[in-house]
Amino acid sequence: MMLLYEGKAKKVFKTEDPEVLRIEYKDEVTAGNGAKHDFMEGKGRLNNLISSDIFKYLKKNGVASHFIERTSETEQKVKAVHIIPLEVAVRNVAAGSIVERLGFKNGEEFTPPLVELYYKKDELNDPILTDDHVLRLDIATEDEIRALKEAALKVNAALIKMMNMMGLKLIDFKIEFGRDKKGNILLADEISPDTCRIRDLETGENFDKDVYRNATGSLIDTYTKFYEKMEAVK
Amino acid sequence: MMLLYEGKAKKVFKTEDPEVLRIEYKDEVTAGNGAKHDFMEGKGRLNNLISSDIFKYLKKNGVASHFIERTSETEQKVKAVHIIPLEVAVRNVAAGSIVERLGFKNGEEFTPPLVELYYKKDELNDPILTDDHVLRLDIATEDEIRALKEAALKVNAALIKMMNMMGLKLIDFKIEFGRDKKGNILLADEISPDTCRIRDLETGENFDKDVYRNATGSLIDTYTKFYEKMEAVK
Ligand SMILES: Nc1ncnc2c1ncn2[C@@H]1O[C@H](COP(=O)(O)OP(=O)(O)O)[C@@H](O)[C@H]1O
Ligand SMILES: Nc1ncnc2c1ncn2[C@@H]1O[C@H](COP(=O)(O)OP(=O)(O)O)[C@@H](O)[C@H]1O
Ligand SMILES: [Mg+2]
Ligand SMILES: [Mg+2]
Repeated sequence: MMLLYEGKAKKVFKTEDPEVLRIEYKDEVTAGNGAKHDFMEGKGRLNNLISSDIFKYLKKNGVASHFIERTSETEQKVKAVHIIPLEVAVRNVAAGSIVERLGFKNGEEFTPPLVELYYKKDELNDPILTDDHVLRLDIATEDEIRALKEAALKVNAALIKMMNMMGLKLIDFKIEFGRDKKGNILLADEISPDTCRIRDLETGENFDKDVYRNATGSLIDTYTKFYEKMEAVK
Repeated sequence: MMLLYEGKAKKVFKTEDPEVLRIEYKDEVTAGNGAKHDFMEGKGRLNNLISSDIFKYLKKNGVASHFIERTSETEQKVKAVHIIPLEVAVRNVAAGSIVERLGFKNGEEFTPPLVELYYKKDELNDPILTDDHVLRLDIATEDEIRALKEAALKVNAALIKMMNMMGLKLIDFKIEFGRDKKGNILLADEISPDTCRIRDLETGENFDKDVYRNATGSLIDTYTKFYEKMEAVK
């Protein structure tokens, strides 16, 4: 099967069906746009299991995505889309770049949640965009921007509910969307502890890639615990 | 008279009248948020003359500002306002940070002009803000954001007209606004070649602080030429 694209965390393959792709989750972990990079056995499997189950959960909660089915421990079949080059970030609590860049207090709540759009462009280091920039760069129309933000908030509400049941707090996350061949916008890519900031509701303990970014624990142990908590509330 | 505030380019003094301030333009020039810094005899006078005449010109063109009168070669009286901590930037042509940060092509035209909001906060290096950030930081309301952007475009249209008569092209500029004691929003601070990017329509020659930033010529000669061109079209 032809490799279409190899990213930092996944490989994307064509299938016999032009409308279907196969995504293989890799045993690799990166941080800081690739500045930190490691091989990590079992990570691909965990993120594929978690991401598949999150897409299933979202579907039950009325959020459509590219996910078709999980075909192996490390692979899923998805609908082929043209990825919109935006990382749509939703923040429930101030952490990370927004604290450093804008001086929000770490831990400050955003009510309602804050949606930000980042330009998915590695060579520019994924800069933040205003809606106007998105329009001028011909990335999306005004209606599409509105739809992306609404969909992101819907994903957020569903994820908060799920993580709450798991005893976890969703701090923030980023998602990607694509257009199918009819031009419909569909949630795509992955949702996993790689793409979310998650804390234990009681202890504040990290349940996300920060354990790798900040080298405070075992990423595999953390993601395994996350997956187990998720299975327990299913 | 009591010094209220000393900035990089101006000193602001109280007057007998609590609603009036005196602004003294300094013989200093800085670039890169103070990274480059020089004393430059005659610069305060030139920027005061230019800025005063621009505020007068804007008034004739229906744009109110804090400007009351020029009281000496280096000073003006202005209405006291509470500065809104935003640098409102208007771009007619892509240049500078937007080229480096977002990959727009240098020289690309923005039609209609693009308005951006930067957080006026030296210690954060004046980061760009989305409208949502402005709301969350309690800097301005939605109506005020709309009013600021509209006012900025009105200033832009008037400045383009003036510079066109001078044989110049306005690439971009940044302005500040404040609230008077009634809460009315008023154009404030300064408008000068320090705060604009200006090119000769024919030769492309710089008529702005870029000659200092890039050390391509005499800032005093350039600003003197700008002032003469401006006087010639009055
Ligand atoms: N349904 C889909 N159709 C087409 N491309 C997709 C789909 N889902 C995700 N992708 C893209 O596949 C790539 C996934 O690989 P990843 O390792 O996450 O890449 P990156 O290093 O760019 O983050 C990304 O470019 C992502 O946008
Ligand atoms: N009408 C006004 N009332 C109060 N403050 C003003 C007014 N106009 C300008 N200012 C403020 O006075 C200071 C001018 O000094 P400047 O040297 O430009 O400062 P900076 O180094 O912050 O750019 C700025 O902080 C500006 O916002
Ligand atoms: Mg990715
Ligand atoms: Mg200033």
